[in-house]
Amino acid sequence: MDVERIQSHDIVKAAGDLIVATRQKRPRVHCITNAAAQVMTANLLLVAGAIPSLSYATDEVADFVHRADALLINLGTLDAERRAAIPRAIATARDKQVPWILDPVFVDASAPRLNLADQLLAHSPSVIRCNRSEFEMLAGQRCEASTVSTFGQRWNTTVAVTGAEDLIMDANQAVHIANGHAWMSQTTAIGCAGTALIAAFCSINPSPLIAASAALVVLGIAGETAAKIAHGPGSFVPAFLDSIATITPDAITRTARVNHET
Amino acid sequence: MDVERIQSHDIVKAAGDLIVATRQKRPRVHCITNAAAQVMTANLLLVAGAIPSLSYATDEVADFVHRADALLINLGTLDAERRAAIPRAIATARDKQVPWILDPVFVDASAPRLNLADQLLAHSPSVIRCNRSEFEMLAGQRCEASTVSTFGQRWNTTVAVTGAEDLIMDANQAVHIANGHAWMSQTTAIGCAGTALIAAFCSINPSPLIAASAALVVLGIAGETAAKIAHGPGSFVPAFLDSIATITPDAITRTARVNHET
Amino acid sequence: MDVERIQSHDIVKAAGDLIVATRQKRPRVHCITNAAAQVMTANLLLVAGAIPSLSYATDEVADFVHRADALLINLGTLDAERRAAIPRAIATARDKQVPWILDPVFVDASAPRLNLADQLLAHSPSVIRCNRSEFEMLAGQRCEASTVSTFGQRWNTTVAVTGAEDLIMDANQAVHIANGHAWMSQTTAIGCAGTALIAAFCSINPSPLIAASAALVVLGIAGETAAKIAHGPGSFVPAFLDSIATITPDAITRTARVNHET
Repeated sequence: MDVERIQSHDIVKAAGDLIVATRQKRPRVHCITNAAAQVMTANLLLVAGAIPSLSYATDEVADFVHRADALLINLGTLDAERRAAIPRAIATARDKQVPWILDPVFVDASAPRLNLADQLLAHSPSVIRCNRSEFEMLAGQRCEASTVSTFGQRWNTTVAVTGAEDLIMDANQAVHIANGHAWMSQTTAIGCAGTALIAAFCSINPSPLIAASAALVVLGIAGETAAKIAHGPGSFVPAFLDSIATITPDAITRTARVNHET
Repeated sequence: MDVERIQSHDIVKAAGDLIVATRQKRPRVHCITNAAAQVMTANLLLVAGAIPSLSYATDEVADFVHRADALLINLGTLDAERRAAIPRAIATARDKQVPWILDPVFVDASAPRLNLADQLLAHSPSVIRCNRSEFEMLAGQRCEASTVSTFGQRWNTTVAVTGAEDLIMDANQAVHIANGHAWMSQTTAIGCAGTALIAAFCSINPSPLIAASAALVVLGIAGETAAKIAHGPGSFVPAFLDSIATITPDAITRTARVNHET
Repeated sequence: MDVERIQSHDIVKAAGDLIVATRQKRPRVHCITNAAAQVMTANLLLVAGAIPSLSYATDEVADFVHRADALLINLGTLDAERRAAIPRAIATARDKQVPWILDPVFVDASAPRLNLADQLLAHSPSVIRCNRSEFEMLAGQRCEASTVSTFGQRWNTTVAVTGAEDLIMDANQAVHIANGHAWMSQTTAIGCAGTALIAAFCSINPSPLIAASAALVVLGIAGETAAKIAHGPGSFVPAFLDSIATITPDAITRTARVNHET
């Protein structure tokens, strides 16, 4: 595989452009997300400049999605009311042609959740963001570039598998991101909240691959910046939100570690 | 309109008295509030000296309100169980003659929520706290001193419209508060939690106008103090809670920016 | 009663061993807990090295408990779905012979909750963690060493009554822990989250008395360490999580204030 430097630069540039555009355009992101992720998700969107909403009441979720610019569906703490709201929210998003993003949290832990994720994938999310273990349960295969690519093609979606290194793939391309810090996985909901930033960026940039990669670059760099200030995974959280609020395109250009392959 | 200095001073003095009294009397505030606001609301009440409870189970919400000194009803994330609990909670509060406060979050985003807010207003909350956009949806009119006053008279309530400047009105009087900081709206639930402090103060001072104004002065000054210490909207949150815990009547007197008009 | 110095030392040593073992073994702790405690509980477990899960959907809670090493049942915000999930979770835990721990939050505030707690006690939790007021409602007696001991024997459980001083008792022994800081009760959910650490430790050490005592020693010392760094109850929270993440057996040995009696 050839590393095409210009395309890696394109993603780094898009990351800077998209964080600036989010502050200016203030996209609305409706999030049906798990109880442990709601506050962090709302705060991450707010400090990035976006406007979150979180309702999952069945009789009003369509109203919220109708005025949103992107939709996040996260399967954590999957109670009856959230389960009823999810199909309505996705139908509204597709009807309005706003991007929707899937985060199949803990799909590796529960059979009903795996069934639901399979059903939702048929509605072609712009991006699915998961970890290796969740991917392997969904795909029924080991997580490798070839299986991720096949999975994305099968479901007509961009796949972002996050971890120590992030891998983002659509049918034709792969992006590897090496930014990030271990404390990001020692705090609940930073991954879940990060998927909401992918949703915000998808509302601005029409390429799910670029939007997802750009969001993961921003998140990873903000994590590195915060880790320099914090004294542990507890003080990391406010520092991480501060870093998202203040990150600049210049800082992104200096510190991004992105590889793009075709 | 005449600015009556003495009455502005009365509100500033009440703000200092009420934060001290809250620490001494430890009022119980029962809060039916949205999922993203529960933690911040509980923490703000705790650091202010009050005792929060948050249950919305229909078979026990009356027990909780029965022993509470004030009730907060916040319409965010309005699921079926919260919706069933709200009328029971309000009925208990009215029965016990404890003040109840309404925060019609996102009433501008959902028709079912607007209908519910209209029904609840008929039960005369001591205070309704909203932003301009929510007010305009509820009142069906632009937000101006005259429409806010008319709305308050119609529903027999004190109206607090919060924003860069806060406006608190009852039938006869208007209070303007200029304290606050932009980071307060870049963090989820600080507004919602602030309404819980209004509820706590309403349990101590019989004037909803004074209680609401005093709470908004305390919140605004704590926000200003915290912003001097914080490095961004993330580190602002712990600093804000520290400021509420340590704010003194003297600091309030020095920094309050309050105008009272009749 | 004789103070047996060696046994006090055993608990201090167990506290150090258990925090190290938690970081190495990474036990899974499934938590059905209240909405205000979910984030803090997940974060406390994560920074301690354990792996939290929080689902209470009735059709998948058994899947989660099945792969867990311990189960926490907290009765706060007791909605219909949590209430339905709790018996399934406990049945699975007993079936798999993993320890389950009960935190009867606010059992003193609501009759339905008291009834449920009584039913759950019949399933012999390894530990019940409560405050004095909750204990007195459950036991129908004043909280004293004799009543705590009798209560534990009656329900075949270890009882941890937390407060300014913690008291942990089983049929034969009592442990007193004097570590801690007042800010721990000025922040929502630190107590609830602490019970999750008891659950994690119970998955590693077969003695509920030692596991519960060791967890409360770790929590109390982390609170003292955090209070030296923090400026108030707001900044206390991130500092407390940092302290849990970095606490060492040596620091525990130096600062534990434990008395063991038989």
